[in-house]
Amino acid sequence: MTQPLRLGIAGLGTVGIGVVKIVKQQADLLAARTGRKIEISAISARTRDKDRGVSLKGFAWEDDPVALATRSDVDVFVELMGGSDGPAKAATEAAIAAGKDVVTANKAMLAIHGQALAEAAEAAGSVIRYEAAVAGGIPVIKTLTEGLAANRITRVMGVMNGTCNYILTRMEATGQGYNTLFEEAHKLGYLEADPNLDVGGIDAGHKLALLSSIAFGTQVDFDGIELEGIQRVSLDDIRQAADMGYKIKLLGVAQMTGRGLEQRMSPCLVPAASPLGQLDGGTNMVVIEGDAVGQIVLRGAGAGEGPTASAVMGDVCDIARGFRLAVFGQPATSLTRATRAQSVLPAPYYLRMTLRDKPGALAKVAAILGNAGVSIHRMRQYDHVDDKAPVLIVTHKTTRTALDEALAAIATTDVVTEAPVALRIETV
Amino acid sequence: MTQPLRLGIAGLGTVGIGVVKIVKQQADLLAARTGRKIEISAISARTRDKDRGVSLKGFAWEDDPVALATRSDVDVFVELMGGSDGPAKAATEAAIAAGKDVVTANKAMLAIHGQALAEAAEAAGSVIRYEAAVAGGIPVIKTLTEGLAANRITRVMGVMNGTCNYILTRMEATGQGYNTLFEEAHKLGYLEADPNLDVGGIDAGHKLALLSSIAFGTQVDFDGIELEGIQRVSLDDIRQAADMGYKIKLLGVAQMTGRGLEQRMSPCLVPAASPLGQLDGGTNMVVIEGDAVGQIVLRGAGAGEGPTASAVMGDVCDIARGFRLAVFGQPATSLTRATRAQSVLPAPYYLRMTLRDKPGALAKVAAILGNAGVSIHRMRQYDHVDDKAPVLIVTHKTTRTALDEALAAIATTDVVTEAPVALRIETV
Repeated sequence: MTQPLRLGIAGLGTVGIGVVKIVKQQADLLAARTGRKIEISAISARTRDKDRGVSLKGFAWEDDPVALATRSDVDVFVELMGGSDGPAKAATEAAIAAGKDVVTANKAMLAIHGQALAEAAEAAGSVIRYEAAVAGGIPVIKTLTEGLAANRITRVMGVMNGTCNYILTRMEATGQGYNTLFEEAHKLGYLEADPNLDVGGIDAGHKLALLSSIAFGTQVDFDGIELEGIQRVSLDDIRQAADMGYKIKLLGVAQMTGRGLEQRMSPCLVPAASPLGQLDGGTNMVVIEGDAVGQIVLRGAGAGEGPTASAVMGDVCDIARGFRLAVFGQPATSLTRATRAQSVLPAPYYLRMTLRDKPGALAKVAAILGNAGVSIHRMRQYDHVDDKAPVLIVTHKTTRTALDEALAAIATTDVVTEAPVALRIETV
Repeated sequence: MTQPLRLGIAGLGTVGIGVVKIVKQQADLLAARTGRKIEISAISARTRDKDRGVSLKGFAWEDDPVALATRSDVDVFVELMGGSDGPAKAATEAAIAAGKDVVTANKAMLAIHGQALAEAAEAAGSVIRYEAAVAGGIPVIKTLTEGLAANRITRVMGVMNGTCNYILTRMEATGQGYNTLFEEAHKLGYLEADPNLDVGGIDAGHKLALLSSIAFGTQVDFDGIELEGIQRVSLDDIRQAADMGYKIKLLGVAQMTGRGLEQRMSPCLVPAASPLGQLDGGTNMVVIEGDAVGQIVLRGAGAGEGPTASAVMGDVCDIARGFRLAVFGQPATSLTRATRAQSVLPAPYYLRMTLRDKPGALAKVAAILGNAGVSIHRMRQYDHVDDKAPVLIVTHKTTRTALDEALAAIATTDVVTEAPVALRIETV
């Protein structure tokens, strides 16, 4: 048996403690499977004196994660602090500079600085692994970079924020509105410190940016994502979708089109009977389509101590086994800059708007849509309440450009009370 | 860039040709992702002169797969002939003896000779990879051996024979009986040359045996599987199951119990609303449960040129990247011999039997069940037709041992026309 693999763990929150537990409790299993002992040399966290429910005796302590990352008795720097910049990035850079390998769950850091970090790591001969950064316990990075390595990937889709899916599922199940269930999720501790990371789709967008890069061999481009959160999804939308045989999910889609890379993270209508439509609660699902393999669907827990620590330790095991892979599946210097192509392919859309009680209001909306080339498949207007009438429209296939033009024109009229809600109906 | 990785491919059926196509068409992609050119040096098949729809020019030809496997210009022997013994085994052994790596889709060979082949390969420093042997394009071997390497696996379940799932799904959809749909599957080319490999559950059993070994660190034990095919599943069973909210699936289950390793491949009732219950047609699904990760569900095409070739080439890419892993995820010499434990944990069962029109027939059946400690949850008797009356029973949880005793006793009475059908109701 070769030398032990020695970890330095920065960040002792839920995931960090989950990792410590696995290293301690599964020592024999890990050694049998990787051929090496896996040990923890040193740890670091914001607060030292705190009962974390597991003994940390025998691990050296560092106040400074940079010092931890560069210790001579650390082979792998395990970064579980989070945050796109600050200590996480500084310590990761220091680890790479010191020739260490890095395992991280930090989607924000990689979505924003992934290209630079990957180039630095590959120049230094280090690997950066981040299975835990996307879809928790589901080995989706491994599936894309390795299992499906012989495929030209055509599309990647995913429901990758459990909190959003929890809120949307509970809205349908309980008939309670978004605000009530946002509060519930907050009380249950499901929301990030900045809730907009969850409900604004940013967290899921970070994950999608990483998957895009691997799938299409392109430099990670978080800013290129057409991003929309779930804040404007109403109970009406969910009920109408259900009536038509759909569910509303915060869905990420990345696909390479003739015009460039399309990346979207937005609430979409998906068929209720599809695997994505059937995904309730906090579970994550990723759908990968490749030219040879067809469609692969992966489903599992997207967060939590066990699943996330499982993913971190899967990466550690790969390193222990000597598996060395470029950060995004091929050398960072070979990744191309994709042209951004937003919603090029036409799709049907679901629209909701609130009309004022004015003569000809509906006709005006219909005329604007028609002039923009957006053809109406179904329309339903409800009774006026307090001078306002909700109108629901399902369009035929249209481009996002045409639709956005029409919606902008509608918003500037005096017949609607607020900007219309438009949700794409996705074929999955 | 290092030296090219040179393949020798034995077997040019659907999968072999799929592999050739990927190597030719995706040469740049494969080189970018693995850092090496992947080339085909030589090929072998039963018939040389045959239009296979793709040019084989430039590849050396060998009539004898053993000669192919040992050529000096072959680094990886790609075995796609099939068959547990004969040329496939001889050539695989020859490849290992010559220090080659092996990639195979041959579940039968590995389910029966896996331990010996793994020991030989590991002694020779060779790897044997077989992602394509289990669940077609789904990277389930990789997920178990690598992605979930830090988990103690608690249970693996799978629907892994597309032909059986196709027949069962079509029985429900069309109301046609087993024999009619068996013929349909035959005409569509979905059945193996020996159809019993499919409908008898043997093919799926081979796959389960491989997953068990990886999941539990045990020597592959195909003979230890409690094996039952779908031949006795009737339209009545499917309809009754549906009435109760279940679907019938040929389901493989492997779990480590306190008494040993339980491995079953048999038609089971699973909740219609569960991912397994919703799996229609030829698609495969594998459910993996681990102590840290919870439940992971993988779904995809279980057969066909593209998906299977994708899996073969995924293994080839791993080898090109220098990933070297023990055949069953840990050294073959460290795998234990598991005690066989058949259906130790109690479960509810669905029973169907045909009673003769005799006074007290039903009472006799009920009494035998009661005496064996099998308690009845629901029972339904239909009208007698031609002196025979179908009876459907759902039991409370019972052990398989108690149930088998009761069924054996019932079969020896004069009140039933044939041995009862018993299908386990599985919690998934």
